[in-house]
Amino acid sequence: MNLKLSNKGVTTQTVDRKLIPGQNSRFQKQIEFIIEVDKLKHVLRQTVLMDRSRRENSAEHSWHIALLVFLLAEYSKETDIDLFHVLKMLVIHDLVEIDAGDTYCYDDKSREDQSQREKNAADRIFGLLPADQAADIRALWDEFENRETAESRYANALDRVQPFLHNYFTDGQTWQANNINSRQVHQRMRPVKDGAPDLWEYVSNLISDAVKKGILNE
Amino acid sequence: MNLKLSNKGVTTQTVDRKLIPGQNSRFQKQIEFIIEVDKLKHVLRQTVLMDRSRRENSAEHSWHIALLVFLLAEYSKETDIDLFHVLKMLVIHDLVEIDAGDTYCYDDKSREDQSQREKNAADRIFGLLPADQAADIRALWDEFENRETAESRYANALDRVQPFLHNYFTDGQTWQANNINSRQVHQRMRPVKDGAPDLWEYVSNLISDAVKKGILNE
Repeated sequence: MNLKLSNKGVTTQTVDRKLIPGQNSRFQKQIEFIIEVDKLKHVLRQTVLMDRSRRENSAEHSWHIALLVFLLAEYSKETDIDLFHVLKMLVIHDLVEIDAGDTYCYDDKSREDQSQREKNAADRIFGLLPADQAADIRALWDEFENRETAESRYANALDRVQPFLHNYFTDGQTWQANNINSRQVHQRMRPVKDGAPDLWEYVSNLISDAVKKGILNE
Repeated sequence: MNLKLSNKGVTTQTVDRKLIPGQNSRFQKQIEFIIEVDKLKHVLRQTVLMDRSRRENSAEHSWHIALLVFLLAEYSKETDIDLFHVLKMLVIHDLVEIDAGDTYCYDDKSREDQSQREKNAADRIFGLLPADQAADIRALWDEFENRETAESRYANALDRVQPFLHNYFTDGQTWQANNINSRQVHQRMRPVKDGAPDLWEYVSNLISDAVKKGILNE
C-alpha cells in the first residue's frame, strides 16, 4: 500500500455534532477524548526498544506495563488487591504527558516543575471528558501519583521495572548516554521494593551485574 | 541526549539464569516473555495516526482500545459484564501478530491462511510462559476470536471502532489507498452492531458522511 501521509492532523473541532446520534454532548466529549489521547503515541521516552532501533513512546510503554499487571501479579507485595483498578491506573497514568511531555527521571532540573506541569495537563486533558468520567480518571491518576494504596504501589513498581529491564537488556544505553550511576538507579527503583519486593531481588542482581559489565557507573 | 542506536537486538537467550533469584524457571520464563512481547511495537498496522504522520503499531492500538474499555462501557450491549476480563483480552489480543503480522482486514487472499498462521503464533508465543499462564492467555485469546461471550463481543466492537475512527478522521486515507467501498466497511463493522449497538448509529452516520464527502467509495 502506498500511503501518502500529510501532516494536516485532526483536532477536537473536527467532531461534527450533527453526526453525533441525538447530538448527545456526553458522547461527543468521549469521541473528542479518544481523538485527543492519540497524541500519547507521539510522546517519546528515554527508553530504547529491546532491539535498539528507536526510542519507545508512552502509549507503547503503557501497553507493556498493562500486560505486566496480570503477568506478574503473584509478585505484588499485597496479593489481595484489585488488579482491574491497577490496570486502569496504568492505562491512564501517562496521559498528562500529552501536554507535560515525558520528564526524564534523572533530570533534576526538569523535575522541579514537573508536578505543576502535570497537574495543569490533567486539568485540561481529563477536563475534556464528561464530569463523572473526568473525576474518575483524575482520582485514578492522583492515586497513582500518591502511592498510598496497595494498588498504586504495585502499579508504580511495574512502571519502574519495565524501563529498567529495557535499560539492562540494551546494555545500559540510556544510563550510558546520561552518565547515570548505580546509586541513582537504586534510588529510582525504590518503588519496586515497596510494591513488589520479590522483583526487587532480581533488579538488585541486575544492577550489580550492570556495574560489573561496565554498562552502568558504580 | 545523543543515543547511539545499534541494531543488535536482544533475544530470550539473553536472560542469564544465574541472575534470576533462586534460578527460578517460572520467573525466568516470565522475564523472557516480557522481552519477547516488546516486538509488538514493531508490527505496523494499516491504520494511520490521527495527525497522519505515520502508521500505527499494534502495541499502540492495543493501548488505545484498552482505554476505550472503561471510557465507553456504557455502550456495551450487555452492561453487566466483567470489564477486567475485557481489558485483559484486549491487552493480549494482538500478540500473535508478532509472528503472524497484521493481516489487513480487506485483504481476502492474506486472510485465507490467517487463522492457521495466528494459531501457530499463539502456540509459540504463549508457550514461552509457565503452563498455567500460557493456558490463561490462550483462553482469553480464543474467547476474543470466537466472539461467543458478551465480553468478547464488546471487546471486538472496540477493536473495530478505533481504526474506523482513525480512518474517518484522516479523510479515509487507508480506504482511499486500498480502494475500499462502503459495503465493505459496513460488513467489517458488524461486530459493533453486535457488541455495542449504541455506537453503531454513529458509525453508520460517519460511513454515510464519508461517502458524501468522497473519502469512501459508495
